[in-house]
Amino acid sequence: MQQNIINKGKVVTFGEVLMRLSPSENRKLQQSNRMDFFFGGTEMNVAASLAYFGLNVQQVTNVSNDLVGDAAITSMRQFGIDVSAVNKVHHPLGLYFLEVGSALRPSKIAYNRLHGSFANISPEQVDWESVLENCNYLHWTGISPAISEGAYQTLKEGLELAQQKGITVTADPAYRSNLWKYGRNGQEVLKELVSLSNIFIGGVNEINEILNTDFPFEEEGFIGASKKLIEECPKIEKVFDKVRTGLSASWQKIYGQAWTGEKYITTEEHEVTDVVDRIGTGDAYAAGILYGLQHFDDQKTLEFANAACALKHTILGDANLVSVEEVLEVVHGNTGGRIKR
Amino acid sequence: MQQNIINKGKVVTFGEVLMRLSPSENRKLQQSNRMDFFFGGTEMNVAASLAYFGLNVQQVTNVSNDLVGDAAITSMRQFGIDVSAVNKVHHPLGLYFLEVGSALRPSKIAYNRLHGSFANISPEQVDWESVLENCNYLHWTGISPAISEGAYQTLKEGLELAQQKGITVTADPAYRSNLWKYGRNGQEVLKELVSLSNIFIGGVNEINEILNTDFPFEEEGFIGASKKLIEECPKIEKVFDKVRTGLSASWQKIYGQAWTGEKYITTEEHEVTDVVDRIGTGDAYAAGILYGLQHFDDQKTLEFANAACALKHTILGDANLVSVEEVLEVVHGNTGGRIKR
Amino acid sequence: MQQNIINKGKVVTFGEVLMRLSPSENRKLQQSNRMDFFFGGTEMNVAASLAYFGLNVQQVTNVSNDLVGDAAITSMRQFGIDVSAVNKVHHPLGLYFLEVGSALRPSKIAYNRLHGSFANISPEQVDWESVLENCNYLHWTGISPAISEGAYQTLKEGLELAQQKGITVTADPAYRSNLWKYGRNGQEVLKELVSLSNIFIGGVNEINEILNTDFPFEEEGFIGASKKLIEECPKIEKVFDKVRTGLSASWQKIYGQAWTGEKYITTEEHEVTDVVDRIGTGDAYAAGILYGLQHFDDQKTLEFANAACALKHTILGDANLVSVEEVLEVVHGNTGGRIKR
Amino acid sequence: MQQNIINKGKVVTFGEVLMRLSPSENRKLQQSNRMDFFFGGTEMNVAASLAYFGLNVQQVTNVSNDLVGDAAITSMRQFGIDVSAVNKVHHPLGLYFLEVGSALRPSKIAYNRLHGSFANISPEQVDWESVLENCNYLHWTGISPAISEGAYQTLKEGLELAQQKGITVTADPAYRSNLWKYGRNGQEVLKELVSLSNIFIGGVNEINEILNTDFPFEEEGFIGASKKLIEECPKIEKVFDKVRTGLSASWQKIYGQAWTGEKYITTEEHEVTDVVDRIGTGDAYAAGILYGLQHFDDQKTLEFANAACALKHTILGDANLVSVEEVLEVVHGNTGGRIKR
Amino acid sequence: MQQNIINKGKVVTFGEVLMRLSPSENRKLQQSNRMDFFFGGTEMNVAASLAYFGLNVQQVTNVSNDLVGDAAITSMRQFGIDVSAVNKVHHPLGLYFLEVGSALRPSKIAYNRLHGSFANISPEQVDWESVLENCNYLHWTGISPAISEGAYQTLKEGLELAQQKGITVTADPAYRSNLWKYGRNGQEVLKELVSLSNIFIGGVNEINEILNTDFPFEEEGFIGASKKLIEECPKIEKVFDKVRTGLSASWQKIYGQAWTGEKYITTEEHEVTDVVDRIGTGDAYAAGILYGLQHFDDQKTLEFANAACALKHTILGDANLVSVEEVLEVVHGNTGGRIKR
Amino acid sequence: MQQNIINKGKVVTFGEVLMRLSPSENRKLQQSNRMDFFFGGTEMNVAASLAYFGLNVQQVTNVSNDLVGDAAITSMRQFGIDVSAVNKVHHPLGLYFLEVGSALRPSKIAYNRLHGSFANISPEQVDWESVLENCNYLHWTGISPAISEGAYQTLKEGLELAQQKGITVTADPAYRSNLWKYGRNGQEVLKELVSLSNIFIGGVNEINEILNTDFPFEEEGFIGASKKLIEECPKIEKVFDKVRTGLSASWQKIYGQAWTGEKYITTEEHEVTDVVDRIGTGDAYAAGILYGLQHFDDQKTLEFANAACALKHTILGDANLVSVEEVLEVVHGNTGGRIKR
Repeated sequence: MQQNIINKGKVVTFGEVLMRLSPSENRKLQQSNRMDFFFGGTEMNVAASLAYFGLNVQQVTNVSNDLVGDAAITSMRQFGIDVSAVNKVHHPLGLYFLEVGSALRPSKIAYNRLHGSFANISPEQVDWESVLENCNYLHWTGISPAISEGAYQTLKEGLELAQQKGITVTADPAYRSNLWKYGRNGQEVLKELVSLSNIFIGGVNEINEILNTDFPFEEEGFIGASKKLIEECPKIEKVFDKVRTGLSASWQKIYGQAWTGEKYITTEEHEVTDVVDRIGTGDAYAAGILYGLQHFDDQKTLEFANAACALKHTILGDANLVSVEEVLEVVHGNTGGRIKR
Repeated sequence: MQQNIINKGKVVTFGEVLMRLSPSENRKLQQSNRMDFFFGGTEMNVAASLAYFGLNVQQVTNVSNDLVGDAAITSMRQFGIDVSAVNKVHHPLGLYFLEVGSALRPSKIAYNRLHGSFANISPEQVDWESVLENCNYLHWTGISPAISEGAYQTLKEGLELAQQKGITVTADPAYRSNLWKYGRNGQEVLKELVSLSNIFIGGVNEINEILNTDFPFEEEGFIGASKKLIEECPKIEKVFDKVRTGLSASWQKIYGQAWTGEKYITTEEHEVTDVVDRIGTGDAYAAGILYGLQHFDDQKTLEFANAACALKHTILGDANLVSVEEVLEVVHGNTGGRIKR
Repeated sequence: MQQNIINKGKVVTFGEVLMRLSPSENRKLQQSNRMDFFFGGTEMNVAASLAYFGLNVQQVTNVSNDLVGDAAITSMRQFGIDVSAVNKVHHPLGLYFLEVGSALRPSKIAYNRLHGSFANISPEQVDWESVLENCNYLHWTGISPAISEGAYQTLKEGLELAQQKGITVTADPAYRSNLWKYGRNGQEVLKELVSLSNIFIGGVNEINEILNTDFPFEEEGFIGASKKLIEECPKIEKVFDKVRTGLSASWQKIYGQAWTGEKYITTEEHEVTDVVDRIGTGDAYAAGILYGLQHFDDQKTLEFANAACALKHTILGDANLVSVEEVLEVVHGNTGGRIKR
Repeated sequence: MQQNIINKGKVVTFGEVLMRLSPSENRKLQQSNRMDFFFGGTEMNVAASLAYFGLNVQQVTNVSNDLVGDAAITSMRQFGIDVSAVNKVHHPLGLYFLEVGSALRPSKIAYNRLHGSFANISPEQVDWESVLENCNYLHWTGISPAISEGAYQTLKEGLELAQQKGITVTADPAYRSNLWKYGRNGQEVLKELVSLSNIFIGGVNEINEILNTDFPFEEEGFIGASKKLIEECPKIEKVFDKVRTGLSASWQKIYGQAWTGEKYITTEEHEVTDVVDRIGTGDAYAAGILYGLQHFDDQKTLEFANAACALKHTILGDANLVSVEEVLEVVHGNTGGRIKR
Repeated sequence: MQQNIINKGKVVTFGEVLMRLSPSENRKLQQSNRMDFFFGGTEMNVAASLAYFGLNVQQVTNVSNDLVGDAAITSMRQFGIDVSAVNKVHHPLGLYFLEVGSALRPSKIAYNRLHGSFANISPEQVDWESVLENCNYLHWTGISPAISEGAYQTLKEGLELAQQKGITVTADPAYRSNLWKYGRNGQEVLKELVSLSNIFIGGVNEINEILNTDFPFEEEGFIGASKKLIEECPKIEKVFDKVRTGLSASWQKIYGQAWTGEKYITTEEHEVTDVVDRIGTGDAYAAGILYGLQHFDDQKTLEFANAACALKHTILGDANLVSVEEVLEVVHGNTGGRIKR
Repeated sequence: MQQNIINKGKVVTFGEVLMRLSPSENRKLQQSNRMDFFFGGTEMNVAASLAYFGLNVQQVTNVSNDLVGDAAITSMRQFGIDVSAVNKVHHPLGLYFLEVGSALRPSKIAYNRLHGSFANISPEQVDWESVLENCNYLHWTGISPAISEGAYQTLKEGLELAQQKGITVTADPAYRSNLWKYGRNGQEVLKELVSLSNIFIGGVNEINEILNTDFPFEEEGFIGASKKLIEECPKIEKVFDKVRTGLSASWQKIYGQAWTGEKYITTEEHEVTDVVDRIGTGDAYAAGILYGLQHFDDQKTLEFANAACALKHTILGDANLVSVEEVLEVVHGNTGGRIKR
């Protein structure tokens, strides 16, 4: 957490705030009578991480006009996220239940979000003109347009204005087939929105889904897919990806790769045994990219994002509550567990 | 809890199963990172209490087809409720958040139920013919028809068949104005459904709402309202009511009154200091009535129900997990707190 | 807790160490998956309270030769009780389950003790000669001889030696009919052991049980019963009693009365709303008597014991973890809840 | 919690942020292995309450430059307090331990604050000119100048500037004799600082301490003391007081009285059984006064403050996390515990 | 958990229900004041797992006639086990304490069961004729006949009737030398009871104990021992075994082997790092065998059982609360920890 | 824990008792509202471990004269440490906050100790003559003289008397540069105090710091440094060291090495995956050395200490709550995680 924030242009995130509910100690819900909860959601996780890196961050969203929405705002404020563009509406806050796996048992999630406060967002609820004032980065993910027509339209309006204003748009367009219930074709929508974006955070899988291609997964495939993406969506300048190997729910390996528009770069692989929390590790990576783009060159950006992603596996909850200094320690290989006194 | 259940006709309840989520120690949600949870809902609370009184009870409902629905079924089974008429559907389980007040601070509730698994119930999902076989009591409340058209139609179908089969229908038709969002007029629907019922659990307030009358609240008003109700809904035979005086969220007084069709009866008042849980006390009363009608005369039924209601204030969670013997101890005035060894 | 213990003769207690297991928040066991535990037992509670009053106290008992017995000894040591006369045997430690009631719901207890480590005690396991060296008070209760023949014989041997040595024996001979499963007649045994005692802690109820009399419960009955007791058991010098009025499990009133051998004395009544823990309040009273006899006159002894008893209702667990100063504050009427900074 | 803050001049508070550590369930520390913690401190409690009432509030303080200070800032931000005037220094954050009493057992506090981050504050660390810009109320208490010479000097500098700028200064000058270890005479300092203030929050006790008088405690004494105070410290315009009757640690009664400069006014008495948390109730009263002075007349201000104080007894933690609406419900007598759905 | 149970013949298990008590976070009992509890016992664990696999399962047992026995029944019902053959008796429920180890520290258990409700079972308490109606599998382990003469005789009576009725008897006859306190020779009894069984779940160790042989532990030894067992106990048809390698308390490897009566078969080895709970893994294996025998061929049965055993290491508590689908995922190698949404 | 302590000369430790406060589940403080706490401190950890090994141990220290100091004494007594040389003073007990890391995230500590009760110790508060009576080992570490001039002087006085009395002094002189705030040069003081010691527990790092040398870290460097140390501080007889390799915060490897005055000896390396608690592992090693020196030869002493150190990683809290038998199991390689029943 950094108290004194350097006053540069802010980052804006758009997306749903979800309450996560989870029994502790790897319990199944039916063995429990108590759950821990956290507020998160993929874009809010990015926002929180960037606030902990010392940036000004504002999230555009809807929350419920009840005690749950009050607590969500409280949590955002606690993370240091600007909540002045949060609307309170008469629909319940979205939420999800998480059973945390271990070793060869995967974690399980059940969602309750499709009629929630964010699903009921609409363009007239957001004053994009005012929100994007003094903004230099706008971040979105593929989850938001998958929730509802209103979320899609609201996001599109924001992206279009951002492009007019010369704001850098970062896209993390994961396609989740079990969303997209409201009638739109997910792949088409995502391609349209990626076309309004400048930085692509994703890999062969995501590109194949959006472009309906079938690039292979190794290095050459990634380069080819990246080039093809830039061809089809010419506003895209760079593609940042991470490659994960899951030995089990408790043991993961990650490295980063990127196509910088000019060359392929990659990082060392971090190995995380004793995973504390797998949720939000991708968002930690995205936040690392957004921070890096504003402070480092591409290689260091990729290393920083990859280290941030690895470090998030050790933090409970959705958000990566670590400082720039802590991430750089991992980048520098200081991972032997010596106590900081 | 009674293990050996006397094999008489079962009680059937129809209604929503809700997950209740609540921070402990009177905390506000925003001061918490952990919540206790319980499964309940007004009709399930009646079912659970009757199962603890030793009756066979079956609940007709929908739960979600996910880990939350699994846990709901687990909880019903734990209470001894027959779950063979529970459907699993692809909508999330309804739930509510509770902040528990104390002294002069009231408790607060926020719901998330109007697009849940029960709201999506429809008549073709329930085989009433089979459910009502070997049933002698069918219980409903005014919450269910307030949730959705499907819940209303499903309930009406069950009540009509119950009347054909000579099953006693008990109605607890509280009108909650903040429900009834799907288009029907609540008062009209409730009057229609009360007309298909035999026992009315409620008082002047509920009758005035249903009949659009304005009987006063004291004894004479209650008698007049009861008579008027029986006149308008002639299947109704008896009216059982409880009268609550709230000194504060932590200190409550309750007594029962009834119109037996022939005379007005009443009970002593129980005083409950140090309230542990106020939720479900009305359901505990209703369960007391249903048990009493099958075992006692009207006066003892009323005393039993009133004592059950008082006792519920000392039990955490929605359901009144007490035995017939424990209720009778209260009826007999053994309330001095002597430890049972 | 007092660190510097004045070096006078020690108090010895003889009795079972029990583990108490209890769900928190007034839960029933079946609603819980977690229990708090404490080590106690009526005589150990007296010992712990006396240690907190600054006396040297040693308990004679058996514990299990396993991880539970280790934890029991740890707990005794934590309270400041001398554990050098504790034997470890190959029988499990006794324990009990407590469901904590509230308001008009009583607490419930289930025991598991009759084949435990203390039930298997026998005279040859205790070196009374060494234990009673430098001892000036020996305390016992009616629970111990009710557990097993071995416990009875061991206790009797200790009492006889104490009488030879001129040690003051204090008796708290509550008769519990659901114990005494091993064949002896409880009333006879208790009378025999009271005959080996000097101070009687109990009232009309206990005397009637032991002497098979039927003195009434008011003041005159108490005086008459006390005189009769001294007549029948002439080693008894004084009779100390407390009178409890239970408004509910959460609201209790207590005052003390005594027959000093010469006159009847009594105290003001303390009223305890918001009872935290009812267990061990009688033991707190007994400890107050034992402390008082060594420091105060009879009137102050009675007031001190009554205040100690009242104060125990506010302390979680079996033992009265309060100092002499804290008890005297209650004796002096400083009970308005002003924070001590 | 109110999200949309009306943009009027802010309130500034000056004081220490303390971590409070407390075992739950009325446990003594030595029976515990876990503590709940909260961040508070008398002035921060006022700040938090005012933020929940919807005002802009900024606190001037020092916190530690470590993980504890980070968490303190996080907590302030969560409450909605502006943290831009918080300094981070290389001294540990002050803290206190609380054992929560019940019924006739008082709560106990142990402090660790006299060498902490706030004790090491000095005038050059605070830019009062900038802090008091756009400020219309500055609040202080008698705790701050009692901590250290630096705290005293820093506060005095702020008060002097506030008077120059025409800012209303509210003083809650409780004298605690176990502070004031650094050499100054507490009574003298407090009188000096009250002379720089406009609203006095306190009663006969506080006035007698400051003026070295001995007014009696009933109405006439309060009026006389108030008049004398205004005579001696002529910037003081009004005196607001609350009168507390402690039946026990769990049962308190409170009413308000004030000298408005022209007349004596008073309120009804609120009775709080089942006290959840006694800490911070005086701060809740002070916040009520500060809010009232900006929104109501004197009579309603007093009633609002008294109701806020009563309500705080039901909220866990140091801060009164309630809205204006919730306080007004108590003012209007809606205290019967009806659940808010 | 499967709600709709295919109506085929039921599985009956016979054995003790134990309460397990365990401090969390790898604490030693003496560092704790709180324990988690679960109901289990080797045969109940098999029953619960089979119920979660969708089979009808009934357990024959005794529980205590108190609040603990009530909770045990509640837990069995929650798991979906038929409790209609559970007797309530006036002896306390058996229980055990578990200190959970980690890495190179082993877990420790202390039992309290030898005078409990199950130890007091006797043949006249069980109506085997009725229990074995519509039963096609009866499962027992070597723990039950080791507890008491009554448990031995009751079991033998059941096995004999099962053989008469052509029910398949599965035996898991682990010999534990620290049981068998009531006078019988364990090896003799186990051989007698295995002679009444059809499927042997165990390996060289168990066979050597029963037959008093000394086969070596590798493949040839296992084949030889199996053949010898079938020779001596000719009702035995197949022998299913698992081979465990413990790298530490937190890291285990397991594979299965079997003698099908015709050939030796084996499985791949599963590796479990980050063990959540080691208890009941053998029971999970046994349940896998019982399910497999009813649904798969021998090879798949062995793979299924081995995967079930591995998966249990990730589930807290005694019972393997996983579905057939979850086990098959492990059989199919999907163990990389990808979150199930 | 061993109950019957062999009556040989006691071990005396001198040092600070600290309260450790730590959120559970690897949480950061700012994500928590609850902390676990333990009492420890490097010398008290040695004392506790030796008490669990069955030795008589007494700690010389100051604690606060408040509820925290009371709890500290309670904890020492629970561990079996003699508290008769503990002074209570009017300064708060030292404490530290711990955020527990995992995998590649290190743990973090924030201290609050430099004005605490131990920092205010002075020679006249300790009656060394009486403390060192019947003592055969005196243990100190480099932390104590780093806290304050008083602590340094008090320690030096003790060491000088110990040398006069022929007591073996063991030194664990870690140099921590972020202590030593009171004006002394740490290296000089440590060298002076090591010169008053007989056994050195430390390695090349510590020797280089004290002697201002730069021996390399491998075997030859260790031998050279040890010889040089003995040359400079001729009372030193033996040097015991451990070599740790941190793969991550959750995965550590340790082996021991020593210079016995005559030869270099070493042990096998223990590997600890799934670290439960890293704090106090060095103290566990030191306790192992002190126990070994009194019971074993040098080689076994080193193996015992190394195994004790490894085992401590699996115990929550500061102190190594294991028996001699449990350590010997690790020495003998029984680390496969087989449950102890």
